[in-house]
Order: sequence, then structure tokens, then C-alpha cells
Amino acid sequence: MKVYGDTQSGNCYKIKLLAGLLDIQHEWIHVSVLGGETQTPDFLNKNPNGKIPVLALGGGRFLSESNAVINFLATGTALLPEDPLQYAKVQQWQFFEQYSHEPFIAVARFIAKFLGLPEERRAEYESKQEGGHKALRVMEQQLQQTPYLTGSQLSTADIALYAYTHVAGEGGFDLTSYCAIEAWLERIRLEPKYVAMQ
Amino acid sequence: MKVYGDTQSGNCYKIKLLAGLLDIQHEWIHVSVLGGETQTPDFLNKNPNGKIPVLALGGGRFLSESNAVINFLATGTALLPEDPLQYAKVQQWQFFEQYSHEPFIAVARFIAKFLGLPEERRAEYESKQEGGHKALRVMEQQLQQTPYLTGSQLSTADIALYAYTHVAGEGGFDLTSYCAIEAWLERIRLEPKYVAMQ
Repeated sequence: MKVYGDTQSGNCYKIKLLAGLLDIQHEWIHVSVLGGETQTPDFLNKNPNGKIPVLALGGGRFLSESNAVINFLATGTALLPEDPLQYAKVQQWQFFEQYSHEPFIAVARFIAKFLGLPEERRAEYESKQEGGHKALRVMEQQLQQTPYLTGSQLSTADIALYAYTHVAGEGGFDLTSYCAIEAWLERIRLEPKYVAMQ
Repeated sequence: MKVYGDTQSGNCYKIKLLAGLLDIQHEWIHVSVLGGETQTPDFLNKNPNGKIPVLALGGGRFLSESNAVINFLATGTALLPEDPLQYAKVQQWQFFEQYSHEPFIAVARFIAKFLGLPEERRAEYESKQEGGHKALRVMEQQLQQTPYLTGSQLSTADIALYAYTHVAGEGGFDLTSYCAIEAWLERIRLEPKYVAMQ
């Protein structure tokens, strides 16, 4: 099993973290987005949408979209509930992540950390703050009620949201007033097989 | 089972269409986004993220995010594959829909159809065209190879992408050059229990 990605990307790190927690052996192949490597004919053959991460399963089988990949890899483990409603709740949080969290927090981080907050993108960076805080408030509200996003068990919903939330500071988001989120981040960081972003 | 939504919203229509195909009885409660009804305390109690659709299952149980809802409702039917990799492929297309398709095609349609393409949003409307066509090309490429997005069977991936693709024209997207998409739209429209958006 091969993973094409960049560990500095939260979407890719989700797979790295999950693979660590579940002891999944894999080969990591670094792909540089800024270097244009996701737009080559060879890469587009793996994912026509030109995005990392991509999981290569052999036999010409590829899977893209980070949350689809972690759910696939976690199937049959304690990190993915079998009960249909609980599994749907995992997906609810993951779709929330991709639509209401990532486009604000990850994009603000990308502009600040990887592009160095250039003047021509400052307005866009600032426009991301409100939506990012709205997403954080939704998470905070849930995590005040349950230790993990879908209840009492760590799941791939938490892996999905952890990825960019734990580095939200790099996008200008101060988490100190989000006490339940801070405690949840620490809970995940203390998992025995936790793997840090690097 | 109650569904809170607006059938003119593609995200809500996914549930309407799926419920039709699967003969799922439900009560539909109209919620007006433009009328502010997704931001009332009562609605935020159902979905703290303030978005439709929301599925109410009784006993204070709610599920939001359209694709999570249709996957939940389709569990155990022919529209949701049991094989983990095939199910992951369904999710791959649904995350693609929420990240790479909806923010372009649905938003362009919203600006044109519901806001009447006001001058102050024309630049945003035009900026959505390129991303929308990129998403359509990704779909076209797949549908040239297989009759449905994940292979030979209709699934909730198709329901998810059908919702906004079949009204993409309302967002300024001319589909006539996407022959495989046009054929796929017609294939879905001809399903015996098909329900039109209304």
C-alpha cells in the first residue's frame, strides 16, 4: 500500500495519523503541490482531480479524498463504528470538516504558513477568520457535551477534524478560549501510538 | 421521520430523490434559508452549524450533512455498496462533490437564480465558472468509462452529484459538450421512481 502525499498537508496527515494509531504499514511517496507534482499526467492518472492524498492499492486501484481513505482504512476497527447511525454521524462531522472548516482554517494556514501571507492575499486571509471561528464554535459546543465528536469513542471523525484544528494557530486562530477543543486535542495527542505532523 | 429542508436546494433535493427511489415515507418541513429560518435558536438546536437539510429521527436524534443523510438512509439497499472499497469510492465522489463541485456550481446557481445575479456579486459568479467546469471534466472522464460514477450500479454517489449537476445550467454551465454527463443525467431521470426537483 502506497500513500502519495505531503505530511505538512492536514488532509494527508490524517492518513499518517490513522496509520500510526492502527499500525498500518505503508510506503509514503512525497508529492509537492507547490512544485506542480499533482498536475502531471502521471499523477492525474491516479487522481483526475489533481489533489493529494491518494491511496494506491495495487492493480491500478486508487482512492482519493482524505476522509474516504481514512474511513476505508479504519473499516472493521474500533475507530469506525458499525452502527449505521453512528457511522453516519462520523460522516456528518467529516462533511462538516470539508465544507465548513477546511476551506477557512486550512486555507488561512496555507496562505500564512506556505505563502508567507503576501499582501495580495491578506484580504482573503482575513475573510477566512470568521468562518473558521464559526466552525470552531460548532466543535466546542459538541466537545463540551462528549469527549469525542461522535460520543465517547475516538473515531475517524476526530482524526479528520484534528488534522487542521491542531495547527489552526498557524492560520491565525487562537484556541485558548476553546477549552473543550484544547482538552480534546490533548486527549488525542496522548494516544499511545500518536504520530505528530512533521 | 422528518426532513427539514428546501426542495430548491440541491443538498436537500438529494434526500427527496433518494426517498422517492427507495419509497421512504417522510414528512417534509420547509425551511427558508433566505428567510433566516436556519439561524433561529430552535433550528440551531437541530443543527448547530445552521444548515439544511436536517433529518430528525425522533428521540432528539438529528443528522445533518446531505451526503451523510443519504448514505444513512440507503444503508442495506442496492444504492449503497457493502464492499468497503466500493463504499469508500461512493464517499470519494461525495467528498469531491462537497469540496470541488458544490462550492462552484451550486454557489454560481444560487447567485444567479436566487439572488438574481446582482452586480456586486458578478465577479464572484464569474470566478466560479472555471472551477465548475474542472469538476464537470472530472465527472465526464469517469462517465466515459462507466455508466455510473462508481461503476455499473447507481449509488448514493450519483444521487449526490446529480442534485446540482442537473441544474448546472441555472448557474451558467452549458452541459452540451459533456456527452457522458448528459447521458448519465438521462439515465437517472429515467429511473422508474424518479422524483423531479420542484
